Amino acid sequence: MTELARQSKAASRSLAKLTTAEKNACLLAMAEALERGGEAIKEANAKDMAAGTQSGLSTAMLDRLKLDDKRIAGMAKGLREVAALPDPVGRILDTRIRPNGLKLQKISTPIGVVVIIYESRPNVTADAASLCFKSGNATILRGGKEAIHSNQAIARVMLTAAKKQFPNFPEHAIQVVQTTEREAIKELLALTQHVDLCMPRGGEGLIRAVAESSKVPVIKHYKGVCHVYVDGEADLKMAEEIVLNAKVQRPGVCNAMETLLVDKAIAPIFLPEIAQKLTEKRVELRVDEASQNILKIPDLKPATEEDWYAEYLDLILAVRVVDGVKQAIDHINHYGSAHSDSIVTRDEKRAKQFLAETDSATVYWNASTRFTDGGEFGMGAEIGISTDKIGARGPMGLEELTTYKWIGIGSGQVRT
Amino acid sequence: MTELARQSKAASRSLAKLTTAEKNACLLAMAEALERGGEAIKEANAKDMAAGTQSGLSTAMLDRLKLDDKRIAGMAKGLREVAALPDPVGRILDTRIRPNGLKLQKISTPIGVVVIIYESRPNVTADAASLCFKSGNATILRGGKEAIHSNQAIARVMLTAAKKQFPNFPEHAIQVVQTTEREAIKELLALTQHVDLCMPRGGEGLIRAVAESSKVPVIKHYKGVCHVYVDGEADLKMAEEIVLNAKVQRPGVCNAMETLLVDKAIAPIFLPEIAQKLTEKRVELRVDEASQNILKIPDLKPATEEDWYAEYLDLILAVRVVDGVKQAIDHINHYGSAHSDSIVTRDEKRAKQFLAETDSATVYWNASTRFTDGGEFGMGAEIGISTDKIGARGPMGLEELTTYKWIGIGSGQVRT
Repeated sequence: MTELARQSKAASRSLAKLTTAEKNACLLAMAEALERGGEAIKEANAKDMAAGTQSGLSTAMLDRLKLDDKRIAGMAKGLREVAALPDPVGRILDTRIRPNGLKLQKISTPIGVVVIIYESRPNVTADAASLCFKSGNATILRGGKEAIHSNQAIARVMLTAAKKQFPNFPEHAIQVVQTTEREAIKELLALTQHVDLCMPRGGEGLIRAVAESSKVPVIKHYKGVCHVYVDGEADLKMAEEIVLNAKVQRPGVCNAMETLLVDKAIAPIFLPEIAQKLTEKRVELRVDEASQNILKIPDLKPATEEDWYAEYLDLILAVRVVDGVKQAIDHINHYGSAHSDSIVTRDEKRAKQFLAETDSATVYWNASTRFTDGGEFGMGAEIGISTDKIGARGPMGLEELTTYKWIGIGSGQVRT
Repeated sequence: MTELARQSKAASRSLAKLTTAEKNACLLAMAEALERGGEAIKEANAKDMAAGTQSGLSTAMLDRLKLDDKRIAGMAKGLREVAALPDPVGRILDTRIRPNGLKLQKISTPIGVVVIIYESRPNVTADAASLCFKSGNATILRGGKEAIHSNQAIARVMLTAAKKQFPNFPEHAIQVVQTTEREAIKELLALTQHVDLCMPRGGEGLIRAVAESSKVPVIKHYKGVCHVYVDGEADLKMAEEIVLNAKVQRPGVCNAMETLLVDKAIAPIFLPEIAQKLTEKRVELRVDEASQNILKIPDLKPATEEDWYAEYLDLILAVRVVDGVKQAIDHINHYGSAHSDSIVTRDEKRAKQFLAETDSATVYWNASTRFTDGGEFGMGAEIGISTDKIGARGPMGLEELTTYKWIGIGSGQVRT
């Protein structure tokens, strides 16, 4: 592991020297190679699929694992899109000339070596590696053990293409961890002198395990317990559309709503209406006492303390009546996961209070929580979403895969 | 510890609501109270001094611990300076209107709860607390156990003044940890749900111990192994001034030079000259073989592998002859601490290579490394310097004590 990390660090120094044009040429060559090398990738994938079938993976897991021509073309398309995005490295973030004439510039730079830990989908290999590569970072990839042959094949095809393009291309720029032992990852994430960042992608359990054991910084996305608060001054038609969209349009994703908070001022009107619409969409409601007092639907499941913390990722919704915007904010800051939360209101003062005091990565006024996404934010691509506060927060695209350095240009200045 | 951290988190929610004018009024009231309350602070300090004398603290330690009217006035002056600085919270870092009309803004916000761990100087209590307060963060302060009474007295005076100014001022905004047990800190830094960041200030041992055990993000400043590389194309008069300044002007600080790298092209001319000047300033040289072959000074200490890693903080300098800018960069990236490094040259191409490829927080061209400092960077005040890459890098002022959130303002947008 030490040798692997050391090689990645060395590769990251070489990567940092590539020009934008060189990086883009590599990405386009990699995309073409993925399409042309589809057979080798499918062969490796067949090994994983056979082993997965034998070990009794579920149909859903096997489906996620499978690579066909369409999925390979999808990876290639992703690489071409990354090539088309602006280079996040070398942006001038700040310039200041000091009274002594020293010119200071804050410049975006690659982070260095980024470890990506993920689960079964092998296409993450191409996505993550291409985003890290475009931002000048060396990547160490550790996917699910069930996808090991597929992941290695994808990385090999990408690297071979890059080396063909540039014979000096650092061959350790994209590395797939060979071993699937847990101890190896722990060892890797203790190498603070070589590894700069770890981004685990997957379920809360995986992320907690990585964060617990890592000595290198970890950017975390624990879960998306997202809220919509329908205020007493809401346009109820708009509120209905936003609530339905946030819950139903794609319930299995992190930016879907999990808890609906309704101001007691409009609960008697709004709750029965929205409950009916949600039930029509097969959403199971788990409601607090005040909601049930209004709804009076027989056999409605009461919400427990655990429901307020729950990330259902399913057609289930916790519902609570609150006493105005302050109680809504308090509920979200206490039970939420600091991901995405929305207020629906016509009242600017309440909206501003909600936007200011809700301590989440992304807060909305009169919009669905479903917009928290690199693509929707105009980042072009997304490597993940951060619910952390140090480093990137919210959707992470190419810029969020960079750090910065200060450059001081003088003419002999010394300190007096 | 859990209760203390929970109280800090609650206080941070209230702090985030204070206006700039309110924060500044509090800071000015605190400054005045420190001056007026000098007697109480000096009394508490006398207890610490007596205990320190009894337990056999060194004269240097006792000097650092001592508070007199001048030092108290210094703290008050610091608070007034922080009041005069612009509010780092609420800056609009990015604005984008999406094709669907959704307006997205990236806004700077407080981080939340910041733990500051430091050593003997009690004035850090006022400095750190005021910077965290101005940036809207609640602070948990854990100074050296020998300064516990002084630290508590300072925090008490500041809080009392703020509460007098605003009766609703959150009394847990600035807390001093009462216990001096090491286990308590470990416990505190495991409370990721309440504590957002830890900034240890002190020696490498302290920082490593904190970083090893913390579950919350830690911004680290391990050490300052700073380099000046004198290139073959350097203006030798300028190089001499920069080298002397970087080593001699204040050798005990982190941005002082510890290793001098000299291009072999000019080593035969430059080395004897600079060695004489440095020796006149009582600097002890530890040189590699190539340097000694040029210098031929009897009894000159040879540099060992440890010398290249050493942060002397003293009038000692490691000296190495290198084969051009590439070897200089490789040396710095291998042995340095990613703090501050400088190239002296007239050659723009080499300078740009050095600035781009040296992987340090701050890199200079034709200037002393001694400029890495919040004040010199125009930040107004400094809470520390980061040698990390995630979160702040380099000098940290008020802006570096903030994070950001995304605000989305819509008119009913839903995702399709």
